[in-house]
Amino acid sequence: MNFSYSEKVVKLQEQVTQFMEEYIYPNETVFRQQQDEQGDRWNKIPPIIDELKAKAKEKGLWNLFLPDDSYGAGLTNLEYAPLCEIMGRSFLAPEVFNCNAPDTGNMEVLARYGTEEQKKQWLEPLLEGEIRSAFAMTEKDVASSDATNIESSIVRDGDEYVINGRKWWTSGAGDPRCKVMIFMGKSDPNAAKHEQQSMILLPMDAEGVTVERMLPVFGYDDAPHGHAEILFTDVRVPAENILWGEGKGFAIAQGRLGPGRIHHCMRLIGAAERSLELMCKRTSERETFGQKISNHGVVQQWIAESRMDIEQARLLTLKAAYMMDTVGNKVAKSEIAMIKVVAPNMALRVIDRAIQAFGGAGVSEDFPIAYMYAAARTLRIADGPDEVHSRQIARLELKKYR
Amino acid sequence: MNFSYSEKVVKLQEQVTQFMEEYIYPNETVFRQQQDEQGDRWNKIPPIIDELKAKAKEKGLWNLFLPDDSYGAGLTNLEYAPLCEIMGRSFLAPEVFNCNAPDTGNMEVLARYGTEEQKKQWLEPLLEGEIRSAFAMTEKDVASSDATNIESSIVRDGDEYVINGRKWWTSGAGDPRCKVMIFMGKSDPNAAKHEQQSMILLPMDAEGVTVERMLPVFGYDDAPHGHAEILFTDVRVPAENILWGEGKGFAIAQGRLGPGRIHHCMRLIGAAERSLELMCKRTSERETFGQKISNHGVVQQWIAESRMDIEQARLLTLKAAYMMDTVGNKVAKSEIAMIKVVAPNMALRVIDRAIQAFGGAGVSEDFPIAYMYAAARTLRIADGPDEVHSRQIARLELKKYR
Amino acid sequence: MNFSYSEKVVKLQEQVTQFMEEYIYPNETVFRQQQDEQGDRWNKIPPIIDELKAKAKEKGLWNLFLPDDSYGAGLTNLEYAPLCEIMGRSFLAPEVFNCNAPDTGNMEVLARYGTEEQKKQWLEPLLEGEIRSAFAMTEKDVASSDATNIESSIVRDGDEYVINGRKWWTSGAGDPRCKVMIFMGKSDPNAAKHEQQSMILLPMDAEGVTVERMLPVFGYDDAPHGHAEILFTDVRVPAENILWGEGKGFAIAQGRLGPGRIHHCMRLIGAAERSLELMCKRTSERETFGQKISNHGVVQQWIAESRMDIEQARLLTLKAAYMMDTVGNKVAKSEIAMIKVVAPNMALRVIDRAIQAFGGAGVSEDFPIAYMYAAARTLRIADGPDEVHSRQIARLELKKYR
Amino acid sequence: MNFSYSEKVVKLQEQVTQFMEEYIYPNETVFRQQQDEQGDRWNKIPPIIDELKAKAKEKGLWNLFLPDDSYGAGLTNLEYAPLCEIMGRSFLAPEVFNCNAPDTGNMEVLARYGTEEQKKQWLEPLLEGEIRSAFAMTEKDVASSDATNIESSIVRDGDEYVINGRKWWTSGAGDPRCKVMIFMGKSDPNAAKHEQQSMILLPMDAEGVTVERMLPVFGYDDAPHGHAEILFTDVRVPAENILWGEGKGFAIAQGRLGPGRIHHCMRLIGAAERSLELMCKRTSERETFGQKISNHGVVQQWIAESRMDIEQARLLTLKAAYMMDTVGNKVAKSEIAMIKVVAPNMALRVIDRAIQAFGGAGVSEDFPIAYMYAAARTLRIADGPDEVHSRQIARLELKKYR
Repeated sequence: MNFSYSEKVVKLQEQVTQFMEEYIYPNETVFRQQQDEQGDRWNKIPPIIDELKAKAKEKGLWNLFLPDDSYGAGLTNLEYAPLCEIMGRSFLAPEVFNCNAPDTGNMEVLARYGTEEQKKQWLEPLLEGEIRSAFAMTEKDVASSDATNIESSIVRDGDEYVINGRKWWTSGAGDPRCKVMIFMGKSDPNAAKHEQQSMILLPMDAEGVTVERMLPVFGYDDAPHGHAEILFTDVRVPAENILWGEGKGFAIAQGRLGPGRIHHCMRLIGAAERSLELMCKRTSERETFGQKISNHGVVQQWIAESRMDIEQARLLTLKAAYMMDTVGNKVAKSEIAMIKVVAPNMALRVIDRAIQAFGGAGVSEDFPIAYMYAAARTLRIADGPDEVHSRQIARLELKKYR
Repeated sequence: MNFSYSEKVVKLQEQVTQFMEEYIYPNETVFRQQQDEQGDRWNKIPPIIDELKAKAKEKGLWNLFLPDDSYGAGLTNLEYAPLCEIMGRSFLAPEVFNCNAPDTGNMEVLARYGTEEQKKQWLEPLLEGEIRSAFAMTEKDVASSDATNIESSIVRDGDEYVINGRKWWTSGAGDPRCKVMIFMGKSDPNAAKHEQQSMILLPMDAEGVTVERMLPVFGYDDAPHGHAEILFTDVRVPAENILWGEGKGFAIAQGRLGPGRIHHCMRLIGAAERSLELMCKRTSERETFGQKISNHGVVQQWIAESRMDIEQARLLTLKAAYMMDTVGNKVAKSEIAMIKVVAPNMALRVIDRAIQAFGGAGVSEDFPIAYMYAAARTLRIADGPDEVHSRQIARLELKKYR
Repeated sequence: MNFSYSEKVVKLQEQVTQFMEEYIYPNETVFRQQQDEQGDRWNKIPPIIDELKAKAKEKGLWNLFLPDDSYGAGLTNLEYAPLCEIMGRSFLAPEVFNCNAPDTGNMEVLARYGTEEQKKQWLEPLLEGEIRSAFAMTEKDVASSDATNIESSIVRDGDEYVINGRKWWTSGAGDPRCKVMIFMGKSDPNAAKHEQQSMILLPMDAEGVTVERMLPVFGYDDAPHGHAEILFTDVRVPAENILWGEGKGFAIAQGRLGPGRIHHCMRLIGAAERSLELMCKRTSERETFGQKISNHGVVQQWIAESRMDIEQARLLTLKAAYMMDTVGNKVAKSEIAMIKVVAPNMALRVIDRAIQAFGGAGVSEDFPIAYMYAAARTLRIADGPDEVHSRQIARLELKKYR
Repeated sequence: MNFSYSEKVVKLQEQVTQFMEEYIYPNETVFRQQQDEQGDRWNKIPPIIDELKAKAKEKGLWNLFLPDDSYGAGLTNLEYAPLCEIMGRSFLAPEVFNCNAPDTGNMEVLARYGTEEQKKQWLEPLLEGEIRSAFAMTEKDVASSDATNIESSIVRDGDEYVINGRKWWTSGAGDPRCKVMIFMGKSDPNAAKHEQQSMILLPMDAEGVTVERMLPVFGYDDAPHGHAEILFTDVRVPAENILWGEGKGFAIAQGRLGPGRIHHCMRLIGAAERSLELMCKRTSERETFGQKISNHGVVQQWIAESRMDIEQARLLTLKAAYMMDTVGNKVAKSEIAMIKVVAPNMALRVIDRAIQAFGGAGVSEDFPIAYMYAAARTLRIADGPDEVHSRQIARLELKKYR
């Protein structure tokens, strides 16, 4: 047992941190300004994005998420986690490092299950940051927390699959650079419960794909990335677009899920760290009732609780990463479920305290915390709500005594 | 002691409820659609507003908030509270009934402290719903939770006052119908602590008033009402615009504060009630893991806790209203402070549970709950953060034993 | 709607408060000392008890709980509640005023459902405070939170009933003055679900009654009252001991339940009030880090939260009492369930803060708070655990939308 | 970074676990029975204790806590922590393994700062488990959370020191085998703030030592160990009894504090683990409303939250242990403060859920959980209340930005 980061990780942490300070934080407002100036939030990408991506690539801070070392950085989950945390401190960072969801999960799926052809067509431009992608899973009319509720269909018809359904919260689908979706649907409603679903590559420009609207999150549109509600009407894609094989949808989802959660959780920890830092600084600068706000006992309580919350959640997330690396996602099932519950709730508590410490500024756009709150709030819902994960944790716990 | 609403109140509750069902709820989306269609969110008022205001006036459900029966409905705080609660169920309702902040507080100040001239010029059109108003109190550069921090100045110069400062979170200032602000600033920094401040009527179109930007709340712009950051540079207003007299700013704020808080709290209770109702309905309609979501134990726990939270907060708020009516704001000081803390926190808990029960839909614009959450969150900050009120409650409690 | 206590109640509050100050608080330690001196905690009653009971009777502060005015004070639930609250401030008070559980519930059952003979034999000496009683309901081997789990049997055999079973948490059965139990068991396992149970009067000295042990609560034995585990082996009682009639057990329990809960809840509120008072006083007397403990922000937060918690729980409990008086227990079902959850949880929070403020003294016997905590903790379990009540609240809520 | 226990630790875990199963758990009730049979809880030690101690010594599971490998097992904090956790699962275990507070802390102080003479006289019999010891620090009349409040005096007079004061919560002083105390008092009120205190060895039988009473914790007397209130009146001890030197009291306390806290925290984690295990088993065995209690959603929520709470607290505690071993107590100051707050609060939450799941049995003596609750509750107070540690955590956090 050893709680120190390896030398390799420490060095990468320094590099990423330096990049954040030099290029990311100062450009958060630049991005917002360029968006405002360009007017069209959805179809124009602020040029700062490409400038920063080039910088990151140049410095070798690129595709750090990808464990496959022929395509990416070849870091383990445990090595990538602390870097991902740092990226999570800014809404701007993940894309700049080509480490943003859902592209990361999609790239990993392609690297692992893709055919050579699929890799050439989609993985390579994704790795280069030339295109972006989406992941179409959640459905509007059913409670998606129970995967067996999925109603979209993927039906074989000769050399093609025909896709029908309605998805929403398809994140990233708003971006003009988004060229492909991984789509999940039922290919065989009569198969065994976990073999009914398939995943298939679906080009954004396929006929029959209608992006009906972009969904806001607490008033934020997340442009140009966005969260789409999409109607799929008799969309036809070549049969070779299927991923891994018919009926493998659930299995791919399982494999995808572990790293995806680690990443989300680490970013949340980064967001919480930044909120705590901002809270410490702000309360040290202002006074009420004759003393610095940071001297008030209640505020010190918030700071202490935040520090304790963050430390614990980070350790649990790192342990989950370690277990994924050493004993695999399946054995780490309970740990992965735990961090999925722990991290967003922790982040919400910490960020909420920061909001309170900032007063009016805290709910505004002048600091990143209100936005971070909204983003963290969705992660108590996305990829299964807390309650579904808690239920699973409990069942695994109870099983020990059967 | 008697926990039943009076016959008069029950009848008004029925009328307001019927109006909500007939005119308000069905027009929430109409309002949003008109906004979208008009394009300019800030300078154009969706026409449904004036239609509905006319209806409410016609039905006599107008200015119910105003205890002064020559100008308003002449209801006590205890009588108005349950009506205000119902209005709080929709973002659209308060304006339609001409009962929305900050106009209500401004009208009450004018009714109580205004000169005949001031009443004629500003109170009458406000009572008619012809114009709207703002209240400029919170300042950007200091922690406003400590009123002595206020830095804006109101300086007498001959027949005029000269006003300088920077205010933000001046709600309502974005509305093209907003014609006047009540502005709070220091008129005499050397006076006794609570006699340094004055309030003055300041026309929106006065020279030197620059609305620099509108502040979003968690991504919501609240257009066309909005929350403004305003720069005041050598703004000159006639000396007779002063309210009550120089140095009376703090005293007016005190008088204004009680009813304003009751209103906010009752609206929050209404928002919580509606969220609970929506949560009950939604979870009764959908299934996961083989049963209605509303059958899951954890969801039933949320519903029960929400019901308990709401009942308690409502009773405390009604008691505070009762005390204001019977023993006055000063004696009711602790109760008013308590509801200011209790109601937003309660509402946030209830609404957050509803968000979780709704999943993705909960953070979107498809239901009013995400917006309600953002609005409620600001009320843990506005009019003094929780911590300042809690501190006061504690001091009043400790005083009993000195 | 009116939040003031009636003149009659205010007067009684003053009398009870004065009695508490003069006779109860100063004798709490006297009671403990007499217990220690007497050595046998179970078979000897500290003489101070009878002295104080005589005083209370003399002052007319006796049987205030009993709504029946031929037997008791004839107060409504709403009138008695604030007096019961005051009694709840001391472990010593309820018995002194002849208002302690389970005697109160038993007396009410006898007054309402007892035959003349039953009243003469048991109700009269109970009303006089000459004997005490117990209520044998909870069973050891099944989860009693689900009443249908009850396994004890009451079987008719000629002119007698034969009783078998094992009960525990039969409170009061340790007291040498306890002469009778009301026993609940199944008389007809084949009857409709809520007509299977009966209640019967069972003299403590009946053959076949074995008090196997007294159960401690967190290390407190509650002597001489105590909580017994009792074995009933072929206990025979005359058939006329049945209460109301065979199969009426559930119905009696329902009728008993409302007032019993109000009483428990009001006493909990009294306990919380006293804890808050003690916390305020203690923290005003001691210093840490250069200032009074009561000046520390975190402690002020505790005081404020406690005040808010108590006020809300009290209002909800009073409202439940009001509803029981005006619309009956059945309509008040949700409110009664709510206070059963709200009051103990509230009291535990408040008392726990007091414990923390007292430091080591808080968990000791030097102040009544550790004991109050233990007592309050049992009330999240007794008469059905929180979860059962919450479930009922949720179901009643959901029913509104069916 | 590595989250697996070393082979050495895994082996010791197995040994300790096996010992627990074979000798500790089955003898918990034996200990209680022997206590009951012996009658005198304070002066007679249940013979099972010595039997078990002999067994543990024989198996080499003895003095595992002591990092000094000439006297003890020579384990690091990180190695001992998981063993200490297992011991914390039973009130009986720490003494049996000669690893119980305050002996452990006293032995460590003696091993580190004791003279040869002091070691021979006190350390050796302590290491052998022949005698026991106490630690007299907390004072009754002042808030001990602020160490500068200490009022007891240690005054040099020729070849002796004269000791005066009143201490309470001197744990272990009730035991007839307790032969020595480490006493903390002020030796020089005029010295620099952290050099005013000294520690001195004080034999229990010294003249002028009056154990006035044993303090209960929530009704538990903790006999024969116990928590004493002791009056020291002109107690004279030889000058050579001073530890390390005059004015070193605070420094010794600092050194002692780290390991002591790790031990307490790990034991709390063990207590929480056992409570969770008991809760899982119990709820799997009983039914309500037609299904196993463990199937109810709310209970599953409790189980999941408990698992998440425990995992996080354990990792933080292990990290603190690791830091103490690698960078020292001073650098680990914040981590040590954090676990001191986190572990008892976590344990209380977990144990409280178990109590609720057990119903009446949960507050009784039939399961170890009510006692565990009481014990854990004192650890939010002992060695400084939560608030003092949180304050320190906040200050260390704020310092980063100065």
